[in-house]
Amino acid sequence: MVDDIKRYAIDNHIPIMRDDTIKALIEALTAHNPKNILEIGTAIGYSGSIVLNSCKDALLTTIEIDDDRAEMARDNFNRLGLYHRVNLMKGDADEILGFIEEKYDFILLDGPKAHYYEMLPRIIELLTDNGVIFADNVLFHGLVEKRGNIDKKYRTIVNNMRKFIDSVDNNKSLMTSLLRIDDGVMIIRKI
Amino acid sequence: MVDDIKRYAIDNHIPIMRDDTIKALIEALTAHNPKNILEIGTAIGYSGSIVLNSCKDALLTTIEIDDDRAEMARDNFNRLGLYHRVNLMKGDADEILGFIEEKYDFILLDGPKAHYYEMLPRIIELLTDNGVIFADNVLFHGLVEKRGNIDKKYRTIVNNMRKFIDSVDNNKSLMTSLLRIDDGVMIIRKI
Repeated sequence: MVDDIKRYAIDNHIPIMRDDTIKALIEALTAHNPKNILEIGTAIGYSGSIVLNSCKDALLTTIEIDDDRAEMARDNFNRLGLYHRVNLMKGDADEILGFIEEKYDFILLDGPKAHYYEMLPRIIELLTDNGVIFADNVLFHGLVEKRGNIDKKYRTIVNNMRKFIDSVDNNKSLMTSLLRIDDGVMIIRKI
Repeated sequence: MVDDIKRYAIDNHIPIMRDDTIKALIEALTAHNPKNILEIGTAIGYSGSIVLNSCKDALLTTIEIDDDRAEMARDNFNRLGLYHRVNLMKGDADEILGFIEEKYDFILLDGPKAHYYEMLPRIIELLTDNGVIFADNVLFHGLVEKRGNIDKKYRTIVNNMRKFIDSVDNNKSLMTSLLRIDDGVMIIRKI
């Protein structure tokens, strides 16, 4: 059961997508009914399993940099009978994205927050027209919209996330809505 | 139609799998009925299309190093309505294989002949138990089994292919049959 993954993640302090974000994700998936989905940041397969359960005839390519998590994700997809619709890659997303020769109609960005900005051009290239990017954690505990001084250890993430948001907002080929739920979600459509 | 791809390849001197090899491939696919297939060496998607047409509920991950060919393969898969079952990666197979976190029950080796040998350990890792490797061109125009001197320009390929064949033959976890058709086919099963 998907709930077992959630419980395991909570017990083991593995960050997974929060409940309201999951609701927004399922809504976006239901609205767009994508067939070919890319996820950056598999973790242990929680959001990926929800994606596959929501889109019964979709395929999911999902990228995770951490060895142990990738392995647990594989086991979880397997246990849930979803593995045959998963293409799991282990490694650095920046690198792996360079090898992909496909387009996706839904891209779930749930990975390294400091890298959203630099990945954006490639992500847009990989998106079909009318395709959707669902980006989690874009407000980073509220720090991204906070005025004033940012703690040094978060500064890079916050600066890069601000650049990501500006760059999305200023791109005329993208339509964006920012949801101030949980850690902040951006739903971006390529028009 | 798959035949159009074949005609295009012949007209443009793009090497594609020969007819008897295709027959052996279809036989092997029918016998094993794989669900998750890896192909190294997409070229323009001729053998990949045959694979997908033979295995109606299988997915194909296929790797091509050449930009133009990868693009043509994508167009061909698209035209044939097979694209939704294809995961096409463009780049060096040695590198890309390192990112894969999956197992395949059928691996079609139709790529860089000089690299079969060095790829073998990783290929075996990526193969499920009872999985099959279908390796084309293992006799390389008869040169691999030829006695005596080998023309300098073919020597590396021939030596590496001999090492590949020996290494397969000497691996007790593999069962092998060598078909002396076309350019030489090896069907290898992991036991």
